[in-house]
Amino acid sequence: MGSLDTNPAVYSAFGDDGAAFQPLNPDDVRSYLHKAVDFISDYYKSVESMPVLPNVKPGYLQDELRASPPTYSAPFDVTMKELKASVVPGMTHWASPNFFAFFPSTNSAAAIAGDLIASAMNTVGFTWQAAPAATEMEVLALDWLAQLLQLPTSFMNRTSAGRGTGGGVILGTTSEAMLVTLVAARDAALRRSGSNGVSGLPRLAVYAADQTHSTFFKACRLAGFDPANIRSIPTGPETDYGLDPAKLLEVMQADADAGLVPTYVCATVGTTSSNAVDPVGAVADVAARFNAWVHVDAAYAGSACICPEFRHHLDGVERVDSISMSPHKWLLTCLDCTCLYVRDTHRLTDSLETNPEYLKNDASDSGEVTDLKDMQVGVGRRFRGLKLWMVMRTYGAAKLQEHIRSDVAMAKTFEDLVRGDDRFEVVVPRNFALVCFRIKATGGMSEEHADEANRVLMESLNKTGKAYLAHTVVGGRFVLRFAVGSSLQEERHVRSAWELIKKTTTEIIS
Amino acid sequence: MGSLDTNPAVYSAFGDDGAAFQPLNPDDVRSYLHKAVDFISDYYKSVESMPVLPNVKPGYLQDELRASPPTYSAPFDVTMKELKASVVPGMTHWASPNFFAFFPSTNSAAAIAGDLIASAMNTVGFTWQAAPAATEMEVLALDWLAQLLQLPTSFMNRTSAGRGTGGGVILGTTSEAMLVTLVAARDAALRRSGSNGVSGLPRLAVYAADQTHSTFFKACRLAGFDPANIRSIPTGPETDYGLDPAKLLEVMQADADAGLVPTYVCATVGTTSSNAVDPVGAVADVAARFNAWVHVDAAYAGSACICPEFRHHLDGVERVDSISMSPHKWLLTCLDCTCLYVRDTHRLTDSLETNPEYLKNDASDSGEVTDLKDMQVGVGRRFRGLKLWMVMRTYGAAKLQEHIRSDVAMAKTFEDLVRGDDRFEVVVPRNFALVCFRIKATGGMSEEHADEANRVLMESLNKTGKAYLAHTVVGGRFVLRFAVGSSLQEERHVRSAWELIKKTTTEIIS
Repeated sequence: MGSLDTNPAVYSAFGDDGAAFQPLNPDDVRSYLHKAVDFISDYYKSVESMPVLPNVKPGYLQDELRASPPTYSAPFDVTMKELKASVVPGMTHWASPNFFAFFPSTNSAAAIAGDLIASAMNTVGFTWQAAPAATEMEVLALDWLAQLLQLPTSFMNRTSAGRGTGGGVILGTTSEAMLVTLVAARDAALRRSGSNGVSGLPRLAVYAADQTHSTFFKACRLAGFDPANIRSIPTGPETDYGLDPAKLLEVMQADADAGLVPTYVCATVGTTSSNAVDPVGAVADVAARFNAWVHVDAAYAGSACICPEFRHHLDGVERVDSISMSPHKWLLTCLDCTCLYVRDTHRLTDSLETNPEYLKNDASDSGEVTDLKDMQVGVGRRFRGLKLWMVMRTYGAAKLQEHIRSDVAMAKTFEDLVRGDDRFEVVVPRNFALVCFRIKATGGMSEEHADEANRVLMESLNKTGKAYLAHTVVGGRFVLRFAVGSSLQEERHVRSAWELIKKTTTEIIS
Repeated sequence: MGSLDTNPAVYSAFGDDGAAFQPLNPDDVRSYLHKAVDFISDYYKSVESMPVLPNVKPGYLQDELRASPPTYSAPFDVTMKELKASVVPGMTHWASPNFFAFFPSTNSAAAIAGDLIASAMNTVGFTWQAAPAATEMEVLALDWLAQLLQLPTSFMNRTSAGRGTGGGVILGTTSEAMLVTLVAARDAALRRSGSNGVSGLPRLAVYAADQTHSTFFKACRLAGFDPANIRSIPTGPETDYGLDPAKLLEVMQADADAGLVPTYVCATVGTTSSNAVDPVGAVADVAARFNAWVHVDAAYAGSACICPEFRHHLDGVERVDSISMSPHKWLLTCLDCTCLYVRDTHRLTDSLETNPEYLKNDASDSGEVTDLKDMQVGVGRRFRGLKLWMVMRTYGAAKLQEHIRSDVAMAKTFEDLVRGDDRFEVVVPRNFALVCFRIKATGGMSEEHADEANRVLMESLNKTGKAYLAHTVVGGRFVLRFAVGSSLQEERHVRSAWELIKKTTTEIIS
């Protein structure tokens, strides 16, 4: 971008007159942030008309922006100008109402405001004392959400009966929730089996359906489980790609018979690929035979369980050890916000607690407080509870339920449109707001040919910039995923996308 | 807080008139965010007069706020009112200019603006295709920072010679940087030693000075290293509590002789306890004899190395495998922002790569792009690169250096004040902007008595609400840590704190 700012006399905005540099100068804070708010407001108004998936090549931004940091300061407007000119055109717009890929990253005015205040307060809540209100707000927000989800009180930090043994923590990702519970389960299994150090580790085994998110298998490797003992249990259309408890029992029993120690089972409510649901209660019953930890990953679909009509997907949760779900996916709370609940916090803190001298304080010593650093990988942590509380406090349960139902209704509309066109098929039952569909292999078209047609359809759609869809493979077949729920989305966007899909399909097939 | 909002006819703000709920309604976005900006502006103006450490009891917030989420929506002003009335008084104010505890969480108008825009765009940049500009901005910001730090080009993503083998990623915490590099080193060591699965894990050993942050030892346990093989090497005043390379060699050689596999060494530049510096080059030379991975943790003091006069602390960094530092500590970039650089990204991605069908895309297949999910624990990730770029773009290198030097000068002022009062001693040399000091054991006072006097001094100071200091133990003695650098801090705050320390000490000693 040239050398706009190489002449400090002209362009430098901060104290090159000799005044001290004040990074939080009150005038700058107001001015920069109000400019950012105006940018955001304009962005939300115009994002619908931007290509959802940008047409840029690897390295494009490095070519547009300067290769080295400037020596001198520049007016904030220069920064904003480069943001608008070079960054925005290279974004994949997750906020676009034409975004149907992956899962939506839902958002709301209250969440953004909460996150903004957290950035400004910039508190680091590793211990209760280091941030009492931030710690207590996180605990409170988790307990509120537990009530919306009708989780058993055993997962709550505080109930009308006082402080329990359960509790929660807000993490950055589901992967971290899996990792910390895997480590807790691993250490408990090693202790139970009388292992000296980690000598027993090669004997521990973990389990999940083959539809489980790849990050689970990665988290197992991070925690040191032997790759040979990480079981991916096949699923099929007979269970709509959910985990079959009978198969799970068979595999766990075979391992136990072979001298391995079944340690951990991950059940998913709403898989990433096709929104399959593993039967939580039945999985818990199988795992209980082996004293294995059961974790429920409800990253996406957990949010739907705040509606009574979806809550049955969590039936049996009172018998599992931990559950995580991510309001940053479907509960209007911007990244990052993954809520992990455990039935016995001591099982986590036994593995994750640290107690260095420089963090010792009376509150921690009293045992009356939660130090959230002992339930996560790291020490430092943002004030994430604020945005989640602000979402629930501002909108209330009824509006949050309305939000879920509205998305599901739009997905149902899309599903009906697909079913009404006999060139297409809906591949698995729609459980939430994701529709998995594809061009059918009809009229002599082979399945392989149909796979190719679907791939071309997806690529053609995405190239238009008017919609962005991702794909998956279910039962060996290439399938399109249509995920409804981007927070600016309305039914008209769903209908427009369907028109585009029909039109593009006609072009491809002919 | 009563039942303010139980009557939807009066209090509900969203569409209880039957209109659809729009969580990103443009009017709400502008209104909520401008209110948040006004709150922040007022907060920065008034935080100086608030008690730094609040006087609240465990459970206070749950007592003040409602125990259950509201059913109906409320005007955003109600949320903000509760924030001001109940949350703010319970905060430990890291933004206060009277905060001298731990390390400061520095911040700036540009960083907050960047983080705000990231929250609003809410992009999830797991692959390049899912967020080209966010991925490239992160890579660019890391390369800019690498230049400010004068890191060798081997750590950069892109140099004038093209794309190299090195690169970086922005993570949430130093702990995650340690964990992912530990896992990479672990897997490489297992492969080298011909281990079948993790059978060789009990033979791997890792090393760090006893002054290394406790999170390192925790990260080793998370990665499955045997607790018996996690070496904490004693340090003492003869090296100002830095790691002695001769001792390191002795311990590593003894392990190798005993059939263990020395796998990883963590060297710290600026320890949390006392800002000790491990000699990076000498540590790298020792580790090289055993083919062990060397990671440099420069979480706090790395930022100072953008000034030529501090850069020598990184001498030898060209011979290490990875280095991490956290702009959220001392480079004016709000949480969370930890920059990890590795010399060979393939050594990380070999352990961390996943390739599920639903994330496959042409760009990833081409091998020409970085998919940042393969360099971290999780999959999802905020657009963290934006705030870091905005800080460097807006302020420029010269102002960032001025910021570091100003903090160091204030710390020097404080150090001189301490040295000028013969009741006190400076316990270890001041390397950066942290002063470790204590009331001396003089006039027949035993060291234990002095320890107690210092503890009482700290507790008395913190109770006033006019300053917040933390402590550590160095060489067996209770020591006060005075960390300069909170972003609203000026010399007058440092001088006021010193006056308070002197006065309180007089009261205690008499």
